[in-house]
This record gives sequence, C-alpha cells and structure tokens, in this order.
Amino acid sequence: MPVDKDLKAAKANDYDAIVLPGGQINPDLLRLNKDALTLIKNFYDAGKIVAAVCHAPWLLVETGIAKGKRMTSYHSIKTDVINAGAHWEDSEVVTDKGIITSRNPNDLEAFSKKIVEEIKEGRHNRAS
Amino acid sequence: MPVDKDLKAAKANDYDAIVLPGGQINPDLLRLNKDALTLIKNFYDAGKIVAAVCHAPWLLVETGIAKGKRMTSYHSIKTDVINAGAHWEDSEVVTDKGIITSRNPNDLEAFSKKIVEEIKEGRHNRAS
Repeated sequence: MPVDKDLKAAKANDYDAIVLPGGQINPDLLRLNKDALTLIKNFYDAGKIVAAVCHAPWLLVETGIAKGKRMTSYHSIKTDVINAGAHWEDSEVVTDKGIITSRNPNDLEAFSKKIVEEIKEGRHNRAS
Repeated sequence: MPVDKDLKAAKANDYDAIVLPGGQINPDLLRLNKDALTLIKNFYDAGKIVAAVCHAPWLLVETGIAKGKRMTSYHSIKTDVINAGAHWEDSEVVTDKGIITSRNPNDLEAFSKKIVEEIKEGRHNRAS
C-alpha cells in the first residue's frame, strides 16, 4: 500500500472515517505511537466512523474508546477487549455508535459493507 | 531451540519453573491453546515459579494469574496488563509471590538471575 500522507500531516477533519487494519505486529507498534493514538481519538471525538479489524481493536483499548462499547475482535485478544470494559460479541461485524469491528479476514466483506453504510448515515453523537 | 517434549506430555510436577518467552506472535498463538494455558495454571496452582518476559505476560492475563499481582511487561501491552488487574511497574524485573516478569531483551540478565534465585528459595504459597 503506497503511503500518501505522513501520520503527523493527517487531520481527522479531512476524512469521513478511519479504518484500522489488523495483524499481530502493526497494532502492537501503533499502540506506542502517540500521533496515531491522537489521530484515532480525533476521529472519535468528531463523531466520525472508527473501524477496526482482527488485532486492531487493541487501538480502541489503548485510546479508551472500547469502554462500554459492544465490540468484536480477533479471538486471541478477546480477553484484552473485555478487560477494557467492552461487551464482546462473536459476530462477523459489530457496530455501536459508529465504532465498527470485525474478527478476522473472513469477515472483510461484511466489515467493508458496514463501513460504507455507516459513512452514508453520517456522524454519530457519542454522548447519546 | 529443539523441542524435547510435546505440550500435552509436559507435566508441571516434573519441573521447578516455567519460563514464557516473548515476541509478538508466540504468546498471541499460545493464548488460544488450551493445553498451554492449563500447563501454566498447573505450575501456578502448585506454587511453582512462573516467569514471563516481553509480550508473554499476555499469558498471565489470559490465565487470570495477573490479577492483583505486581508485574511488568513489554511497554505496548502495559494497558492490557493493568486492565487485567495487575499493578504495573517500570522495572527490569518484578517478582510477586514467585511470578517473575521483565520488560524486554535488555532485562534478560536480571530476569534470568531472579529466576535462579526464586527456584532456590522454593515453592510459593499463593494464598498468603
């Protein structure tokens, strides 16, 4: 995937949604990157779509977004997601106030479809 | 590292301690392996030494051993360890009732030395 913008240059205001891909290594590195965590929180605070698949829900744990949300994740991090205060579900895609999560690569079709649907619906009021 | 015994054949009674190595992949796979989790719990329940470094503290999260313990881990999983109910410390080695943890490869000398010390001290009463 060619990189078209540096993390520091990316602004939540310029986009409708952020999609966080998985893998065991990438989210583990991003958890330690303050610019990445700030960008994710900026999307969340602006009521925009935040989507995460496989191991990327760790980033929702790290930013505190997971707390109180209905969510799913790759099975191996289920305990971390539950310990962060989320309500974990074993479904191909789970949506709660614009937070969209899926379990693994087999769920990508449902995950992508739901992201498009939610973007069309517009912004989410996280206070409600 | 040559494997000298299958996981199913390994019995906690035959050893003084279990040492869980890190890496991002290995502990993530072992979290989903019931035989591995049972073996770790058997060491713990028998009052034997359980040592974990880098990302391996995830296995102490998964087995519930982390709860209430003073511990450390690789920095990226600090939030997961805290969310599991542990008291996280930024030290090269942390020992609490025979549970020995270190942060990263730079800590291995202190980690290994502490494991030998604790094995010489004998079994730990986890109820105390």
